[in-house]
Amino acid sequence: MKIMIRALPFVIGSVLSAGLASAASAFEALPKQPPIPKDNPMSAAKVELGKQLYFDPRLSVNGTVSCNSCHDVSGSGTDNRPVSIGVGGKAGGRNAPTVWNAAFLTAQFWDGRAATLEDQAKGPILNPIEMAMPNEKAVIERLSSIPSYKEQFAKVFGGPSALSYDNIAKAIAAYERTLITPNSAFDRFVKGDKKALSPAAQRGMKTVQDVGCTACHNGVNFAGPALPMGEGFYQKFPMMTNNEYVAKYKLEEDEGRFEVTKNEADKHMFRVPTWRNVALTAPYFHNGAVKTLDEAVRVMGKTQLNKDLSAEQVSDIVAFLNSLTGEFPKQTMPRLPATPNSSVVGE
Amino acid sequence: MKIMIRALPFVIGSVLSAGLASAASAFEALPKQPPIPKDNPMSAAKVELGKQLYFDPRLSVNGTVSCNSCHDVSGSGTDNRPVSIGVGGKAGGRNAPTVWNAAFLTAQFWDGRAATLEDQAKGPILNPIEMAMPNEKAVIERLSSIPSYKEQFAKVFGGPSALSYDNIAKAIAAYERTLITPNSAFDRFVKGDKKALSPAAQRGMKTVQDVGCTACHNGVNFAGPALPMGEGFYQKFPMMTNNEYVAKYKLEEDEGRFEVTKNEADKHMFRVPTWRNVALTAPYFHNGAVKTLDEAVRVMGKTQLNKDLSAEQVSDIVAFLNSLTGEFPKQTMPRLPATPNSSVVGE
Repeated sequence: MKIMIRALPFVIGSVLSAGLASAASAFEALPKQPPIPKDNPMSAAKVELGKQLYFDPRLSVNGTVSCNSCHDVSGSGTDNRPVSIGVGGKAGGRNAPTVWNAAFLTAQFWDGRAATLEDQAKGPILNPIEMAMPNEKAVIERLSSIPSYKEQFAKVFGGPSALSYDNIAKAIAAYERTLITPNSAFDRFVKGDKKALSPAAQRGMKTVQDVGCTACHNGVNFAGPALPMGEGFYQKFPMMTNNEYVAKYKLEEDEGRFEVTKNEADKHMFRVPTWRNVALTAPYFHNGAVKTLDEAVRVMGKTQLNKDLSAEQVSDIVAFLNSLTGEFPKQTMPRLPATPNSSVVGE
Repeated sequence: MKIMIRALPFVIGSVLSAGLASAASAFEALPKQPPIPKDNPMSAAKVELGKQLYFDPRLSVNGTVSCNSCHDVSGSGTDNRPVSIGVGGKAGGRNAPTVWNAAFLTAQFWDGRAATLEDQAKGPILNPIEMAMPNEKAVIERLSSIPSYKEQFAKVFGGPSALSYDNIAKAIAAYERTLITPNSAFDRFVKGDKKALSPAAQRGMKTVQDVGCTACHNGVNFAGPALPMGEGFYQKFPMMTNNEYVAKYKLEEDEGRFEVTKNEADKHMFRVPTWRNVALTAPYFHNGAVKTLDEAVRVMGKTQLNKDLSAEQVSDIVAFLNSLTGEFPKQTMPRLPATPNSSVVGE
């Protein structure tokens, strides 16, 4: 209930707004900095360490899969596959969410089972069909055998147990908090550049409010209202099941958050995903079953709002969603720490 | 025979040299630029395009494997695995050679079956256990569906068939020719900085000449003498088979260049691999069966020179080989061209 109440002012605001100028003011530009947790302050050395870890396939049991393998920061922050492929060619159960702007989300994973980026980072490393390290101890032992990691963890975190599983996650999360894409056409528009959006995108911006998309897709990340960190913003998907899409795209096979909580009320509940850079993250939905953005828009209209969107509405909404593609910061490549004379990866 | 004759002056030079100063003069520092083929001149736009292609997993059938997956330029230019893992978790037959300084080699692959970096780049994309694209046409079609690639190929290569399989390989090769690691401790030593090498490394430098390693491991890349591009420098491995290592590390299972040429004389012939950055590229040999550099040195002493190297000799040689780790240039991350609203990768 708390969530719905918090979301209401925004929805009311957008429903009441008539013209585009006032509608735009109901939207928010992406801040340049995401929230930084007090127990994991940022530093250049920590971000650099986190970047190395993020790109290092030695965090997987056979040295073939890194965080970046499925959340590719050279691209959309996803792998643009229906579901990801882990070590040994095993397919995961869900579509990889983008890492770009994930720092603005108040819960992670499709089912919100991780409260923070730190919690999220700990999951795939040990997941048997993702990176498949046997346990935390094995991860720490492997990284401890890489001299520069030992030094960097000592420098960044200090203390005798600087290279801990918690600190691995903290370093990765710190790097991920730099993965922000500000200054999209939408952001420039909201800040006053009225030429930043095409007429189609401007129509789409109005349509997503008029038909009800922004009841859920609101806030700086279009992933829901600003909640306290750890409190996810969930929605049932599919909401309406009396349509062709549910069977066609197997939308009911995954029980969503219920699979974590076993709470009946969580059946088919999913964290509302971001719209930022959504034009780049095909295929769509938790199972990656829908290949194009226009089809995803049609499906959402029908399954969530019980509306058959017209071709023009779909086209306008897609134009608006494309305006949410931000500027990707230039990055240097990390240099992965060496283990001279030997390899720490087995068969 | 031509090869042996060309190698001889170097060997004689190093054998004749008594003191370290003259021994060093028999060695060559790594040039900053590798040979550039006349039909593939370098340009910034081509290198940038090649970098994008090199990092793009969409060059593999299911979008999971890029050139960089097995030849990781964030690290040693290899995957530090015994053999590489391709799409679907399939294991390749041989250890991935490093891409760093590969531009100085006059033949590519362990068996030298590609004459140039361009020829090499064409192989793994279509290899069913590597990137597994069905054919050249499918690769061209996929890249043609990515707008920025189409534009970049047109700009870089021009003409109606700018986006061709040949030009894909040319762009990748152009990028790879920037992957040079100059200014190792060895290079600084050769150029006159006599403090650049530790006493152990200096002893090792003499030992590799005295025991005969440099009969093959010579030239700027320690991979053989300067031959015309396309002419590989091969050696039989293992040369001596009456030792424990051959069975232990299954050194005779792979018939090397014979598997390509079916020429009896090519049985167990392999291209002599580079020593540059060899401290970083464990595990070792064509099958990646040897886990550490010191063991690799012992194996080579016995199988190639029929010598039981002493612990001190091995330790000195390893110190020298570590001095061949160069400076890795800082690189920016590529930005992979987008396909807004859809993905070009299937299941």
